[in-house]
Amino acid sequence: MSGRLAELTGPGVAKNLGPDSVVLLPVGAIEQHGPHLPMSVDAVIAEEVANALLGSVGNEVDLWLLPTLSFSKSDEHAWSPGTLWLAGDTLTRVLSDLARCVASTGARRFVFLNGHGGNSSLLVTACRNIRLEYGLLTFLVHPFVPPAAGGPSTEEELGFGIHGGLQETALFAHLRPDEVDMDQARRNVPEWMADNCSVRFGGPVQFGWTSRDFGPDGHIGDPTGATVELGRRLFVKVVDTLVDQIREIAKFEFPDAAPVASGI
Amino acid sequence: MSGRLAELTGPGVAKNLGPDSVVLLPVGAIEQHGPHLPMSVDAVIAEEVANALLGSVGNEVDLWLLPTLSFSKSDEHAWSPGTLWLAGDTLTRVLSDLARCVASTGARRFVFLNGHGGNSSLLVTACRNIRLEYGLLTFLVHPFVPPAAGGPSTEEELGFGIHGGLQETALFAHLRPDEVDMDQARRNVPEWMADNCSVRFGGPVQFGWTSRDFGPDGHIGDPTGATVELGRRLFVKVVDTLVDQIREIAKFEFPDAAPVASGI
Amino acid sequence: MSGRLAELTGPGVAKNLGPDSVVLLPVGAIEQHGPHLPMSVDAVIAEEVANALLGSVGNEVDLWLLPTLSFSKSDEHAWSPGTLWLAGDTLTRVLSDLARCVASTGARRFVFLNGHGGNSSLLVTACRNIRLEYGLLTFLVHPFVPPAAGGPSTEEELGFGIHGGLQETALFAHLRPDEVDMDQARRNVPEWMADNCSVRFGGPVQFGWTSRDFGPDGHIGDPTGATVELGRRLFVKVVDTLVDQIREIAKFEFPDAAPVASGI
Amino acid sequence: MSGRLAELTGPGVAKNLGPDSVVLLPVGAIEQHGPHLPMSVDAVIAEEVANALLGSVGNEVDLWLLPTLSFSKSDEHAWSPGTLWLAGDTLTRVLSDLARCVASTGARRFVFLNGHGGNSSLLVTACRNIRLEYGLLTFLVHPFVPPAAGGPSTEEELGFGIHGGLQETALFAHLRPDEVDMDQARRNVPEWMADNCSVRFGGPVQFGWTSRDFGPDGHIGDPTGATVELGRRLFVKVVDTLVDQIREIAKFEFPDAAPVASGI
Amino acid sequence: MSGRLAELTGPGVAKNLGPDSVVLLPVGAIEQHGPHLPMSVDAVIAEEVANALLGSVGNEVDLWLLPTLSFSKSDEHAWSPGTLWLAGDTLTRVLSDLARCVASTGARRFVFLNGHGGNSSLLVTACRNIRLEYGLLTFLVHPFVPPAAGGPSTEEELGFGIHGGLQETALFAHLRPDEVDMDQARRNVPEWMADNCSVRFGGPVQFGWTSRDFGPDGHIGDPTGATVELGRRLFVKVVDTLVDQIREIAKFEFPDAAPVASGI
Amino acid sequence: MSGRLAELTGPGVAKNLGPDSVVLLPVGAIEQHGPHLPMSVDAVIAEEVANALLGSVGNEVDLWLLPTLSFSKSDEHAWSPGTLWLAGDTLTRVLSDLARCVASTGARRFVFLNGHGGNSSLLVTACRNIRLEYGLLTFLVHPFVPPAAGGPSTEEELGFGIHGGLQETALFAHLRPDEVDMDQARRNVPEWMADNCSVRFGGPVQFGWTSRDFGPDGHIGDPTGATVELGRRLFVKVVDTLVDQIREIAKFEFPDAAPVASGI
Repeated sequence: MSGRLAELTGPGVAKNLGPDSVVLLPVGAIEQHGPHLPMSVDAVIAEEVANALLGSVGNEVDLWLLPTLSFSKSDEHAWSPGTLWLAGDTLTRVLSDLARCVASTGARRFVFLNGHGGNSSLLVTACRNIRLEYGLLTFLVHPFVPPAAGGPSTEEELGFGIHGGLQETALFAHLRPDEVDMDQARRNVPEWMADNCSVRFGGPVQFGWTSRDFGPDGHIGDPTGATVELGRRLFVKVVDTLVDQIREIAKFEFPDAAPVASGI
Repeated sequence: MSGRLAELTGPGVAKNLGPDSVVLLPVGAIEQHGPHLPMSVDAVIAEEVANALLGSVGNEVDLWLLPTLSFSKSDEHAWSPGTLWLAGDTLTRVLSDLARCVASTGARRFVFLNGHGGNSSLLVTACRNIRLEYGLLTFLVHPFVPPAAGGPSTEEELGFGIHGGLQETALFAHLRPDEVDMDQARRNVPEWMADNCSVRFGGPVQFGWTSRDFGPDGHIGDPTGATVELGRRLFVKVVDTLVDQIREIAKFEFPDAAPVASGI
Repeated sequence: MSGRLAELTGPGVAKNLGPDSVVLLPVGAIEQHGPHLPMSVDAVIAEEVANALLGSVGNEVDLWLLPTLSFSKSDEHAWSPGTLWLAGDTLTRVLSDLARCVASTGARRFVFLNGHGGNSSLLVTACRNIRLEYGLLTFLVHPFVPPAAGGPSTEEELGFGIHGGLQETALFAHLRPDEVDMDQARRNVPEWMADNCSVRFGGPVQFGWTSRDFGPDGHIGDPTGATVELGRRLFVKVVDTLVDQIREIAKFEFPDAAPVASGI
Repeated sequence: MSGRLAELTGPGVAKNLGPDSVVLLPVGAIEQHGPHLPMSVDAVIAEEVANALLGSVGNEVDLWLLPTLSFSKSDEHAWSPGTLWLAGDTLTRVLSDLARCVASTGARRFVFLNGHGGNSSLLVTACRNIRLEYGLLTFLVHPFVPPAAGGPSTEEELGFGIHGGLQETALFAHLRPDEVDMDQARRNVPEWMADNCSVRFGGPVQFGWTSRDFGPDGHIGDPTGATVELGRRLFVKVVDTLVDQIREIAKFEFPDAAPVASGI
Repeated sequence: MSGRLAELTGPGVAKNLGPDSVVLLPVGAIEQHGPHLPMSVDAVIAEEVANALLGSVGNEVDLWLLPTLSFSKSDEHAWSPGTLWLAGDTLTRVLSDLARCVASTGARRFVFLNGHGGNSSLLVTACRNIRLEYGLLTFLVHPFVPPAAGGPSTEEELGFGIHGGLQETALFAHLRPDEVDMDQARRNVPEWMADNCSVRFGGPVQFGWTSRDFGPDGHIGDPTGATVELGRRLFVKVVDTLVDQIREIAKFEFPDAAPVASGI
Repeated sequence: MSGRLAELTGPGVAKNLGPDSVVLLPVGAIEQHGPHLPMSVDAVIAEEVANALLGSVGNEVDLWLLPTLSFSKSDEHAWSPGTLWLAGDTLTRVLSDLARCVASTGARRFVFLNGHGGNSSLLVTACRNIRLEYGLLTFLVHPFVPPAAGGPSTEEELGFGIHGGLQETALFAHLRPDEVDMDQARRNVPEWMADNCSVRFGGPVQFGWTSRDFGPDGHIGDPTGATVELGRRLFVKVVDTLVDQIREIAKFEFPDAAPVASGI
C-alpha cells in the first residue's frame, strides 16, 4: 500500500508502515526567483513531483509521502524581502526531528526529494547524520540535479541556468501556467564567469555566493525561451528518472552492515 | 490587496507588503487523533480556516497568508508512531526565523493561526520573543480556543473534549467528510478527572500530560455525536469570530510604544 | 514529613523523599514594578506564599520546598535598567536541570509556584517537557492567576491590573509594608484598550507586548487603592486556594498511564 | 549609597546605580555536604558573607547585592539525590544573562562572590567572557579560596579538607548552629593521595573528580574538630579579607584600556 | 608576500595581510583508513599539498596558510576506535570562528583545502554561511575531488575507490613511504553496488552511509596496486591543478555584488 | 608501547591502546604575543614539550599523543587581527568530542598538556565534565603553570610576566631561535598593578581582562633578557617536571570510585 502518511490514522500508521516502507519528504522553499516567477516555485515543484511519483510507483513500492516542508535554507536569497528561510542549524534540527519520527514507524528508508538546490549540501550532511542517529537508510533525490551541484544546464545559459532559468521556468510553467509572467522574463547570465575554469557553477571549486552577488535581478539563467510544452516534457523526464531511483532505493540494502545499523 | 505571499514574485513582495500588512502563518500539526481521524486534522483545519479568512476579510484587510507550517510541537503524541513532531526548541527557532523574514518585508503585524492546542503556550512565548527580537506586533489566534487552555467543550464531554472530540471531529468532517471513520469513533472521556476542582482541563492548575496518560486510544473526548452539519455550523462561527479578530488586529497599535519597538 | 529540601543532608534526602513527595519550586522575578514597588515583588510573593503553604499543609502532604528561583523570564521589562532577566532558552534549561535533580530523589510530583505572569506560558511548556523528559507529574500553580492569562482583575482597572496594580500592590504591602511607596502610586490603566473585544488582556487573542508598550511608567493597573488590609485578605484567600490545589496535586495520578511514564 | 538591588524600584535603579557602582552576585549551591551538614551550606555562606560585606563596606563603596544564585555547577555531587545542579552550559548562560542586566544599569564592576569551589574555574572563564561581551570589569572572590584551587586547608586534613571539612563545617556552624549534626561528623580524608606530588588537591596537576570518587560519605576532610567559636573567628577573618578586596575592586581601573572596553 | 600566518607576529599580520590576501585552511582528519594506512592520511595529504602550493604560487599570490585543522567530521568512521571526529555542529562552529578571525585581518578570500571527503558537503554549506556571516569570498578545493562527490576513481575499483583506495594510498605512499603497510593492503570494493544505476558512489542519488556499512575492513577501494611512483605523479597533478585553482581564486570577484557583501 | 595515535592504523589502535594507556592532547593557540614573537608560540611549545615527553617516558608509560589542537580560547587577544580563536563554547564541544573518541579506544586516562594560559580555567572545567560524561580519568598539565593562574614569574617582571615575557620568550627562542625578533623585544610590565594586594596576576582575586587592557603592545612581561640558553634550561626543567607528572598520572586510581565511573 502507498499514500500520504498524514491521511492515515494513528493505528493506521502502525498497521501500514513497516520495514519495507519508503518514506519521502518533499523539501521545497519559498524564495525569490526573479521578476517572472513566484516565490513558491521550489515548493510547488517538489510537491507536484512527489504526487506524480506516488501515482507512478505507488502500486509497486510501499511509498509514503510526508507533507511538503515548504521552508528551508534559502539564505542566498535573504537579501530579497519575503524569502522565508530557515537558518542551516534550524533546518538540520527539523530534519533530525522528522527522522526520529520516521524511525518510530518501523520504516527503514527515508528519502528527501529536494526542490531547492541551496539545500543540497546540507541534505547530504543530514543523510549521514540520520543514518548514524537513527539507523535509517537515507537518500537524497532531486527533480533535477542543480547545475550548481553538477547537474545539467543549457549551453545557451553557459551551464549557468541555476535559478529561475530555462528549465525551472519551463517546468513551473507546466505546473502553474497562470503564475508565470513571461513579460518579466529576461536573460541574466553571468557571462563574466564563463572564462573561469575552476570557480564557476559546475566547476571543481565550490564557492560561497548569494543570488545578489549576480546582480539585483535575483534569478540566474535565461528563462526567455521557456514554454509550457518544454516544461511538460521535462516533467515527464524528471518523473521517469525519479521512478527508477525510487525503485532502486526500495531495494537498497547494505549486505554487510552491522546488525544494528552502524551505531555510534 | 491580499493574497498568499508565496504566489508573489520577489519584486511583488516589495511592492505589495508594507506597514499596514497583516501576515498570517497557519500552524498545523501531523499527529494521531484517535482511531477515527487522520493525522492531518490540525493542519487541515488551520489551512482551511486561513483560506476562508482570506476570502472573508481579504478585501478590507491587507492580509497575506504564509504556507501552512504542518509540523509543530506534538510531543504529547510522541508515543504514537507516525506523529511528526518538532522539539520545542526546534519550533521556537523555526518561528523566530520566519519572523525575521516577515520583518524584512516591512509588515509590522504577524499572526499565528494555531490549529493545535499543544502549541499554544509555546506560541504565546514566541509572541513576546518576536516582539522583542524584531519589533513586530505579534498575535495568536485559534480556530477555537482549546479547552485545555480555557476554551469551551461540551457538557457531555465534561468539558474534556480536547483532542479528537465532538467539535474537532465535526469541524473536520465538514472539511473532509471522506476522511472521518465514524465507525471507529468512541467515547474516551476521563471521567475520573471530573471530581477534581483544580487539576483538570480548564482548571486553575496546569499540568503536564501526554495523550497516552489517558489510555491507549489517543483521543480525549466523545466524537460519537459529530456530524457534518454540526461541523458546518462550527466552521461558520469560527470564521466569523476570526474575521472580527483579524479586523481588530489590523488596527491594533500601542499608542505609547517606544519609537523603535521596545528593543532590548 | 515536610520541609525545605536544602536543609536536609544528602542522606536525609534519600531517607525522607520518595514517591509520595511533592517538590515545589517557588519561581519569582526581579523586575521593575513601577515607581511604587521594588523589583523584588514577585520573588517575595512566591517565597512567602510557599512558606505559608508549608505551614498550612506540611502536616498532611509530604511537601518539600526548593529555594526560590529569583531570576526568570522578565524580558518584557528588559527596557528598565536593573531588571534581572533570563532569556527564555536559559530559563528552560534551568528548569530542565532542576527537574532532573528532582527526579533523582524518587519524588514523582514537581510543582512550579509562579509569582511572575510573564513566566506562565513558558512554564506550561516546561510542564509537558519535563513530563516527557523525566516522567515526573508536573504542575503549575499561581498565587493568583495573572489577568493577562485569564485571571481576575478589578473593574476599576478594566480588568487590566496585571502588573503592579491593585491586587499585587496590596498583597506586597501586606508582606513588606515598609517597601511600598504609596506616594508614588498612580493610575496607569490602558483605557485605549478597553474598547477592544479581542486584543486585550484576558481577551481571546494573545499578543506580544512589553511593559514599555504601555508607556514609561512601567506598571499596568491602578495601585492607588491598595492597602495592607486588602493585602492581608488577599493573602489568606490565595493561601487557602493553593492549599486546596496542593492537596489535589498530592493525590493526582493518571490511572491509565503507561508503566514508565509516556517515554519518548 | 549601597544596598540590595532588588529592593530598589525601577526608577530607583536608574537613580542610584552608575559608573562607580560595584554589583555583587553571591553564588551558592545546594549540594550534599556529607552526613553532618545540610545541602544549603554554600548558599548560606555566600549570602551571609555578602550581607556582612554590605554592613562593613557599604558606607564607603557603592555596593549593590543581587539576590543569591542558589543553584550552580554541582555536578561532582550529581550522584547524591537532591543535589540541585545546573549543567555548566546552563550556568554560563545564566551568568551571561545577568551580566547583560548589570551592564544595563550603568555599573561597570561586577563581582562574583562564590561559595562553591566547584564553580571556580567556570567563573574565571565567565569573568573573561563578560569582560568581552559587555565590557564590564569582572571579578571573582571567595569566602575562602578553595583548597582544591590552591587555598589553605589544615595539616590535620593533609590539606585535603575541601568539602565539608573543618573550616567549612565550623563556618557554617557559626552561621547556623542548629543545622549541624556533629554526631554524624566523621573523618573522611583521602590518605592515599598524600604521597602524590602532583595529582592531589592543591598540586600542580588538575584532575577531574567527583565526590563519589572519594567514597560514599560525600564530604572530603575532617569536620570532627569544628566548633562554633572556630567558625566565628574564621568568619571575621573572611569578612575582613573580603572587605579589603572589595575596596581594591572599587578603585580598580585599566589605565590604558581601549575606550570602549576591548570589544570583539 | 606569502607564508604561514602563525609565523607572523601580531603587528606582522596587520602589515602583511589585506584585501588581496588569500587565506587557506588545510582541513584534514584523523580516521581509520583500513588496515594498511595510518589514521593521519587526510591530515598529512592536506598539509603537504598546502605546503607545496605555498612553494608553487606563493610568489604570485598573496597566500597565507593557517595551521592544519586535523580534526573534522569523520563520523562515518565512528565505529572504529581511535577515529577522532567532531560532530557536524562542532565543526561548523569551528569554521565559523576561524572565518571571523580571517575577516579581522582584512583579507577577503578564505579557502578550505579539504583532504577528507566526508567533510565536503558540510564545507559547501560553510562556504555560504561564511559568505553571509562575514562577507568573505569563500572557496572549497580538494586535492582530488572525492569520488563519492563526483570525482574520478579507477575502473578497476568500479569507480568506488573512495577511501583508502588506489589513489589515496599511492598519494600517501609518496608522502610517507614508511607509514604504508602494503602487506595489509587488500581489495575491498563493493561489487554488489556496481549494478545500481542511481544509488552508488558518483551516482545521482546521494545516500547516507558509514564505512562499516561496507564491511569490517574500513577502507573502500583497492589499494593493492598503489606505488610510490603513482603517488608521485598524482601529487604533481594535484598540485598543478590546485595552483591553477588558487590563481583563479586570487582574482575572483563578483562584479555586481552589493557594496557590503550581501549582508543579512 | 607508545607513540602518536594518528600514526596507527585503525586495527592498530584496537591492538595497542587499552586500560593502561595515557592519551595526551597538546593544546596550543595561535595568538598575538607582542612584537617580538610569532603567533604560533603556544602551539609550538605544547607540541615540542609533548614530543620531548614521548621521548622521555615513552618507554615506561603507555603514552599516546594526539595531534596538537592549534586553535583554542584566545579571546583575550581577539582585538589583534590574525589571532585565531575559538569561542569558549566551541572549544568545550571540541574537547568533549575528542574525549568521546578517546573513551572509544579503551584508554582510561586523558591528559591535556596546555600551552596557553587563557585555556586553563576552561580546561579545568572540561576535566570534570569529561570525567562525568565519559568516565575517563582526566588531567591538566602545563609546561609551566601560568603566573595568572598561580605559577611563578620573575621578580624583575613583578610576577607579571604572563604573556610573551621572559620565560616564554626564552623557551620559544630555544625551540625556534630564528623566529624571535629580539630587536622588537621591550618591557611591558603593568607597574601600576604592583601596589595591588588582591587584584593582580597571581593574587587572590581573579579578574576578567584582555591583553589590550594592558596597552597596545600585546605582550605582558619583560622579554628583554631572554636568551636561548635560559630557554634551554627552562625546557629541560619543564620536561623533567612533566615526566614526573605523567608517571604519577599513569598510576593514578581512585581506590573507592563507583564501579562505572561516577555516572550521572
